[in-house]
Amino acid sequence: MTYLRHLEACNRFDPERFLPLLLAGRRVGFVRRDNARALEAFAHLFRISSDAIAFADGIDGAEAATAALGEATDGLIRAGVFDKRRGELFAVTDGWRGPLLFELDRGAVPFFGTRSYGVHLNGWRPGADGPDLWIGKRAMDKKIAPGQLDNLVAGGMGSGYGAWETLLKEAAEEADMPEALTAQALAVGAIRYRTELPDGMRDDVLFLYDIQTPTDFTPRNTDGEIEDFRVLSARECLALVRETDQFKFNVNLVLIDFGLRHGLIAPEDQDYLALVEGLRGSLIRGGR
Amino acid sequence: MTYLRHLEACNRFDPERFLPLLLAGRRVGFVRRDNARALEAFAHLFRISSDAIAFADGIDGAEAATAALGEATDGLIRAGVFDKRRGELFAVTDGWRGPLLFELDRGAVPFFGTRSYGVHLNGWRPGADGPDLWIGKRAMDKKIAPGQLDNLVAGGMGSGYGAWETLLKEAAEEADMPEALTAQALAVGAIRYRTELPDGMRDDVLFLYDIQTPTDFTPRNTDGEIEDFRVLSARECLALVRETDQFKFNVNLVLIDFGLRHGLIAPEDQDYLALVEGLRGSLIRGGR
Repeated sequence: MTYLRHLEACNRFDPERFLPLLLAGRRVGFVRRDNARALEAFAHLFRISSDAIAFADGIDGAEAATAALGEATDGLIRAGVFDKRRGELFAVTDGWRGPLLFELDRGAVPFFGTRSYGVHLNGWRPGADGPDLWIGKRAMDKKIAPGQLDNLVAGGMGSGYGAWETLLKEAAEEADMPEALTAQALAVGAIRYRTELPDGMRDDVLFLYDIQTPTDFTPRNTDGEIEDFRVLSARECLALVRETDQFKFNVNLVLIDFGLRHGLIAPEDQDYLALVEGLRGSLIRGGR
Repeated sequence: MTYLRHLEACNRFDPERFLPLLLAGRRVGFVRRDNARALEAFAHLFRISSDAIAFADGIDGAEAATAALGEATDGLIRAGVFDKRRGELFAVTDGWRGPLLFELDRGAVPFFGTRSYGVHLNGWRPGADGPDLWIGKRAMDKKIAPGQLDNLVAGGMGSGYGAWETLLKEAAEEADMPEALTAQALAVGAIRYRTELPDGMRDDVLFLYDIQTPTDFTPRNTDGEIEDFRVLSARECLALVRETDQFKFNVNLVLIDFGLRHGLIAPEDQDYLALVEGLRGSLIRGGR
């Protein structure tokens, strides 16, 4: 099997199956055509045509759009279209670190197909055969990817949090890492994917960090999201990535990126350029 | 000033100013429209129309295309369109590690606008303020970028050489590195750009390597291409990248990539995603 299949699996997005969501003429999300019907109940909030969903006239600023999405979120939950609020607001901006367009509940993000940002931290230490990696096993009661393998730390970026603040917060919650330790993490790049999921889609940017953990460090999960942590050699992780689906879908991409940056996947691999470019959006359809 | 200006400078390619060069219906290069006139003398080799240059009927395999380009190269040199053969063949393939399409002299590559591959090696060692980098100053008699700053090792990939073989060869020539030392280099990714230059264009993929050099190592140039080597902190290099044009045009990109991978440029930079994606082809026009 190939590494590339994971990039393809994370970029299963066919714009034909979705309607662009427009705010003041700008695309800010994608709603799957079959989901769009559920928005017909909110004619005062959205204008739905055969080729787009636009916020209704007068809804053109951040405050109005946020209020409209909040009302729609509650209505969609009542109608059973999706579960519940996650109780965490995500900010949708005009490009990375651009002006705020609106906020919406995290639970509504897949339905509206808005861009979201997250952080993933590779915890590594020198091993017998190159770097070893700290790998978490996700709790069996997680809604997404229960029991699958994960990075040392990962989390979505809530409204008001930057990448670095999210990293510090998630590292404390997920791996009991004191801030002074997490502060040794290095930013090492970012990856992108856009893919259809049962509940809508994900249009994700993940900021990636590496940290060389001290020998006396053992992560300890504090929020119940991770069942246990183990140490696997990075080569072993990459073999699992290649041959199995034990890792959470997007963690495969983070590990492929780790392999590309640490000499574990080399230009002699026929897919090398497709991997390097595919992690940064070359497979994305429907515009940037 | 910004890092991004270097990515823009390395992606100044306007497809409108060029004609695609077609082999058996596939685009294999780009010839600038004003240069295309010089090919009219070779009507038995090329069919020139207002929207493309195609190899003449019957020239559809690697051997025939290589012969045609060799004949055209000699004719163009006689006509004074470009200087001389470089005496080194570059292979043009159907994608990275794909089947050979044809070979042509390195000196003819900008004129025909074919894809070429190269390697760059960042030599680093731990410094007082993060990594220090070995930086070469290019000889004043180099045709390209005389006197400008360069990586420890860099070179184009000749026909028959893979990325790793090119690295070993260039490291020996440019920095007197024994093979056992160079073998410690790690593949760390690749960057792409496509840009117009006075003699035509460059459509380059650079495979990047990092090596942590031992304390007793000092590079010594053996092929006259580098005047001297110096050690600068990576932060100092990035300040020079941002504020000056002392580095060779594409070396700026290699150093920006180094900064992105080593935590020296972080997501808090407004241009972060534009840099990450721009280094992997998001700014390229005219198709992949």
